Amino acid sequence: MKINGVSYRSIWPVDSGAGWRVAIVDQTRLPFEFATVELASCDEIADAIASMRLRGAPLIGVAAAYGIALAMQSDPSDRALDESCRRLLATRPTAVNLRWALECQRALLAPATARDRARLARHEADRIAEEDVELNRAIGAHGARLIAEAHARSGRTVNVLTHCNAGWIATVDYGTALSAVYQAHDAGTPVHVWVDETRPRNQGLLTAWELAAHGVPHTLIVDNAGGHLMQHGRVDLVLVGADRVTARGDVCNKIGTYLKALAAHDCGVPFYAAVPSPTIDWSIGDALVEIPIEDRAADEVRGVRGRSPAGVAVVEIAGAQTPVANPAFDVTPARLVSGIVTERGVAAPGQLARLFPERRVAA
Amino acid sequence: MKINGVSYRSIWPVDSGAGWRVAIVDQTRLPFEFATVELASCDEIADAIASMRLRGAPLIGVAAAYGIALAMQSDPSDRALDESCRRLLATRPTAVNLRWALECQRALLAPATARDRARLARHEADRIAEEDVELNRAIGAHGARLIAEAHARSGRTVNVLTHCNAGWIATVDYGTALSAVYQAHDAGTPVHVWVDETRPRNQGLLTAWELAAHGVPHTLIVDNAGGHLMQHGRVDLVLVGADRVTARGDVCNKIGTYLKALAAHDCGVPFYAAVPSPTIDWSIGDALVEIPIEDRAADEVRGVRGRSPAGVAVVEIAGAQTPVANPAFDVTPARLVSGIVTERGVAAPGQLARLFPERRVAA
Repeated sequence: MKINGVSYRSIWPVDSGAGWRVAIVDQTRLPFEFATVELASCDEIADAIASMRLRGAPLIGVAAAYGIALAMQSDPSDRALDESCRRLLATRPTAVNLRWALECQRALLAPATARDRARLARHEADRIAEEDVELNRAIGAHGARLIAEAHARSGRTVNVLTHCNAGWIATVDYGTALSAVYQAHDAGTPVHVWVDETRPRNQGLLTAWELAAHGVPHTLIVDNAGGHLMQHGRVDLVLVGADRVTARGDVCNKIGTYLKALAAHDCGVPFYAAVPSPTIDWSIGDALVEIPIEDRAADEVRGVRGRSPAGVAVVEIAGAQTPVANPAFDVTPARLVSGIVTERGVAAPGQLARLFPERRVAA
Repeated sequence: MKINGVSYRSIWPVDSGAGWRVAIVDQTRLPFEFATVELASCDEIADAIASMRLRGAPLIGVAAAYGIALAMQSDPSDRALDESCRRLLATRPTAVNLRWALECQRALLAPATARDRARLARHEADRIAEEDVELNRAIGAHGARLIAEAHARSGRTVNVLTHCNAGWIATVDYGTALSAVYQAHDAGTPVHVWVDETRPRNQGLLTAWELAAHGVPHTLIVDNAGGHLMQHGRVDLVLVGADRVTARGDVCNKIGTYLKALAAHDCGVPFYAAVPSPTIDWSIGDALVEIPIEDRAADEVRGVRGRSPAGVAVVEIAGAQTPVANPAFDVTPARLVSGIVTERGVAAPGQLARLFPERRVAA
């Protein structure tokens, strides 16, 4: 995607004489400042994931793959492979892409000789990154069709509500849910996006920033507003990304998604999650019980970042004496989900295995 | 209620030689600063309601009654009565208490002579304020019983989730939903409150401030979190106030209440609204169509107030170029409501008229 006319991805390798590094867009500074950072080690990648300088389920999978490659560059031993996998896996427990990417790397590297590991790991990370771009492009084509169909039915602008940020910045490029919006918009389907603020981290601001840069009409709302808008027929489609989707079609995504799915169901609004297949966890039975929900720091709830006359700053809405809970994800049961948009098409929940028959056998 | 050992109400008349004024706690400065302000005219009352220095459905009803009394103090003409009613009614369209209080004043003052109006209006405002205190005390007793019953069933601490602020600061004293919590706590029932932040105005911070002052265990959460907590059995009861309740039991309350009611219904958690009878609008049929939902300023969404190293400040999370929508209330349909807690007891939705037979005749 382009920022001021310059094409960017959210992550890319930077080669230099003294080994290579990984460049990223620092998402904790967006949308207030656009800055890139270079990360030189697996530890730096892990820190960037934990602090959410790198975020978005697909992107943290790719970043983890690069993290292993950086680790192998400096130490291709079995011990270093184990340790770097362990370190990265511990950063974010909920999104399954991270685990998937580490499994890709481990399957490739474990049988390889130490001499080959650095090269193989870098090649695999590059491959995973390129694959993410292609998966998201395909997801967007299928999702854009849903938007075009809604337009064909109503003849009016299609109002999409989205939660969190499932845009290009959450992936290597294109995004998942927003890939559909971008492709619909680019194809001339009139589309407008209701953007949930998405407290506590306000990833909706990233979504608004992306949509503004691409010229897609949008309106920022607080997380409380979506139900009311749906009651009044002002939302045609809810379209979100996800951090983990089960074979049954349960959708684990940013905290608050479940509330929007309930409202969509109550108001007869279709609810879709758009995910690349590495976000599908074929091993999970009961999502509510089996998916670990990350509890994040209280400071995320207590503080809000924004512009002040003195520059970008964090104000504290509650002090350390106020007890806080901060679960970061929730699970939307499949019964509330109209469909899962994947790179192979749209599946009704429970029908995902039809799109991925090779996984049905494996499961 | 007490602040640092001093008893306060949220509004009280201050008599002096040169006429009287109304003192209030400035709610736009809470919880960061506790400050009282004196208002000397109907216009100042109206401005304080519009800017939410005065807020909470019961409190703005009482404040409006004082506004009329101040107007009559300076000009007891029919024209001034009409104009002050019109001015106050226009400040907030959704809460019905405002209209109710103005109707009380008008019914009393219209037939009275200009000479008597100032005295009658002040007396009526005082009466309405005292009545609010008594209604809230009674609501709290009925609501506390619900909490005690939940405790008797589980034997554990009762986890109440509340949205917005329905505490003493939203009324003259005691509060509505929080009156129940305070009375349960004071009676020794172990109770803990999940406090929704309640974007965009963050009235949850007022709730946390009240609960902390009273020593009630509580935890601040973002508005997105409640559904997840209910899915995992961590909420026993949802208890909110309301800005308008219909005879059928539809509940119009702060934006986002509908989402919590949906989650409560989905998870088998009882959902109650606690309201004094002046909050019941007996004239409304279809709440979703007939209750006007106030759209408030975009700045409320774009800005967040909190403490910074330089003092209390507002940071801008989105700039003027970001389109914003800010509906302030939503309607929870009666089918999602377990009961309405009033000063006369708890009614199933649709059964409110049994508690108020005199209104059934009037309707």
